Amino acid sequence: MEWEKLAPELSVVTDSKIILLVIDGLGGLPIQGKTELEAAHTPNLDNLAAKSACGVTDPVFMGITPGSGPAHLALFGYNPLKYILGRGILEALGVGVEVGKNDLVARGNFATSRNDLIVDRRAGRIPDSENKKLCQKLNSSLKRRTGIKVFLYPGKEHRFVVKFSGKGLSDALSDADPQKDHKPRVPTQPLSEEAAETAQIVNDFLDEAIDILKGSSKANTLLLRGFSKHPALSTMHELFKLNPAAIANYPMYKGLARLVGMKIVDPGPTLPELFEATEKNYDKYDFFYIHIKKTDAAGEDGDFEAKKEAIEETDSYIPRLLALKPEVLAVTSDHSTPSLLKSHSWHPNPFLLFSKTALPDNVAHLSEKECSQGFLGRFQAIYAMPLLLAHAGKLKKYGA
Amino acid sequence: MEWEKLAPELSVVTDSKIILLVIDGLGGLPIQGKTELEAAHTPNLDNLAAKSACGVTDPVFMGITPGSGPAHLALFGYNPLKYILGRGILEALGVGVEVGKNDLVARGNFATSRNDLIVDRRAGRIPDSENKKLCQKLNSSLKRRTGIKVFLYPGKEHRFVVKFSGKGLSDALSDADPQKDHKPRVPTQPLSEEAAETAQIVNDFLDEAIDILKGSSKANTLLLRGFSKHPALSTMHELFKLNPAAIANYPMYKGLARLVGMKIVDPGPTLPELFEATEKNYDKYDFFYIHIKKTDAAGEDGDFEAKKEAIEETDSYIPRLLALKPEVLAVTSDHSTPSLLKSHSWHPNPFLLFSKTALPDNVAHLSEKECSQGFLGRFQAIYAMPLLLAHAGKLKKYGA
Repeated sequence: MEWEKLAPELSVVTDSKIILLVIDGLGGLPIQGKTELEAAHTPNLDNLAAKSACGVTDPVFMGITPGSGPAHLALFGYNPLKYILGRGILEALGVGVEVGKNDLVARGNFATSRNDLIVDRRAGRIPDSENKKLCQKLNSSLKRRTGIKVFLYPGKEHRFVVKFSGKGLSDALSDADPQKDHKPRVPTQPLSEEAAETAQIVNDFLDEAIDILKGSSKANTLLLRGFSKHPALSTMHELFKLNPAAIANYPMYKGLARLVGMKIVDPGPTLPELFEATEKNYDKYDFFYIHIKKTDAAGEDGDFEAKKEAIEETDSYIPRLLALKPEVLAVTSDHSTPSLLKSHSWHPNPFLLFSKTALPDNVAHLSEKECSQGFLGRFQAIYAMPLLLAHAGKLKKYGA
Repeated sequence: MEWEKLAPELSVVTDSKIILLVIDGLGGLPIQGKTELEAAHTPNLDNLAAKSACGVTDPVFMGITPGSGPAHLALFGYNPLKYILGRGILEALGVGVEVGKNDLVARGNFATSRNDLIVDRRAGRIPDSENKKLCQKLNSSLKRRTGIKVFLYPGKEHRFVVKFSGKGLSDALSDADPQKDHKPRVPTQPLSEEAAETAQIVNDFLDEAIDILKGSSKANTLLLRGFSKHPALSTMHELFKLNPAAIANYPMYKGLARLVGMKIVDPGPTLPELFEATEKNYDKYDFFYIHIKKTDAAGEDGDFEAKKEAIEETDSYIPRLLALKPEVLAVTSDHSTPSLLKSHSWHPNPFLLFSKTALPDNVAHLSEKECSQGFLGRFQAIYAMPLLLAHAGKLKKYGA
């Protein structure tokens, strides 16, 4: 992949603006002959498609179902096969934990243990307030370690993030989580020789924390998974000379955006909030990643109708984006989430590129099938970024 | 190409079944306005296409005409640019010769020499029985070599396979074959410094064998070509956790299948035999590679009509494959063999994917042109395997 090498060399700063509207899980599969997108009434997107160049993208490559991490990295112009993101790092960044080079993070659950068996991996979904108290208690009670700091950050209900800071920590660790109820808790295991010392630090912390929690009725143990260190990603400013903003509400997507150096604007989860925030912040940035979660959530629920409606609701805001007169407006998704499958899938994403320099094709309705016939053809999602930059006049000629 | 690294990590065992029907040399070029596939009456394939996602594949990349080796490797999910297969290894595997790490194999011809000139490179196509006797004679008469075993395996007519077993043998050897009649025989030449010793062993064997054969009237000399060692291929089970079977009759294709760890089911060359064998063995495997040779043979002969008829005959068996209710049925080819060219070509292959999770497109007739408009677009054949596995539910999500 030469894009990463070329990007800093070819990218230039201009006044032009790019909006990347990510309708999460947009692509689907037919139920009664039509996909969610085909069934939805989308006059604004259709109108836009008629004036745009369309195509379909593979987040990683054909057949590969991506998690949100690799799927977004690709859209942001980063090689999803080179930068591997652990779940822990995403969660940590999502709740606003600063993660540096010497930090190791993991996702945690407070859980309930009885007779040495985990009987509830979610500790009855304790309220956020109790979670917060437990984290404070642990943070103040844990013994000082030489050269290592441990800190817990409360999340929603039973979830938290733990950060270990210190030199030489490794993330080659197995989950300290039996994954199922009615099993004994498991320590983390080192997955490489270098990780042996880190495993001992983590297991020592677990023993101590469980000892501190032993009075609690529900949250009397903890589970850790997705150990990860900060991946060495250049920022979008370093690579593309962009000044980018993420208009996003969900932790995972804010985390991903922060990872590539975007400023986070979190106006709340509703569509009016997201689009208003885009308008309000339009003068401050030159790249806007807007993340719509509803479509993916409905797809994961297998709710065809709700996904269709979320697409229709999103459609109604397209005129407001156009009113901002961005030089480039791209509408696409990170991955497909067909209601039929109730999960992410490997199917390619519809991709629409609106710009003065886009060559309009015969796509009259934004759909999976029609986009596959579009001028842009089928391409790997990592090439979306060079395309956006090019259409925004932000990429110089390569070679003489 | 990260597919080889991802595959073992993402693949899972399920009960679902995949049928890969390879209609060898399927793609063609128009004669009087229609390709063989366009001219053929294929109601079953057309019917299937209407319910399937279609596309076209490049075995290696655009413009490259592949041999059967690389073309099949790509279809089986192996990088055809990384694993180079000598003709000798294919022939050896095809006739059932076990080839290990220390073995060097080559294709051989018994030939006729007169006055130190090769006058018939095929020794008048001697009967199989005589071939067998000659190999036995050589195997029993050849002197014992220190650290090296030599063994000949008879094939059809004048063809045989010779295997040299011993440490440090190299396959960097030129053919010991003048390629044309009325030329003197040539020794093998080492193509690298390391191969010098092996070349001497081979040439010493040739001298001795010719001496043993000197009484024969027709088969009084031998030619060797395609020296090759066993390539270090992981099996399809190791990479994809599949339990695969090849329903194939011709040595080359059986050899290719054996190379990637398929079990060989050889029911004979006729279509009824091939499809019956698929039915009979359907419970035993989860992946079926069915190889149809007739289409390619007709293409190589430049026989448009015969190729058209072979396509039509294949078409008539599609309902029997569908009756097995495989989760995934793919119909494609390893490479194109246009009758117009009487040879393999670089044109992309029609590709049809039938599955509950495939998004049907507007392809109503399985043809080169219509497939190029299909939802799957144009892709490298190596991505066929991730696609088949994904649609069969045999690939986990990549990343969180």
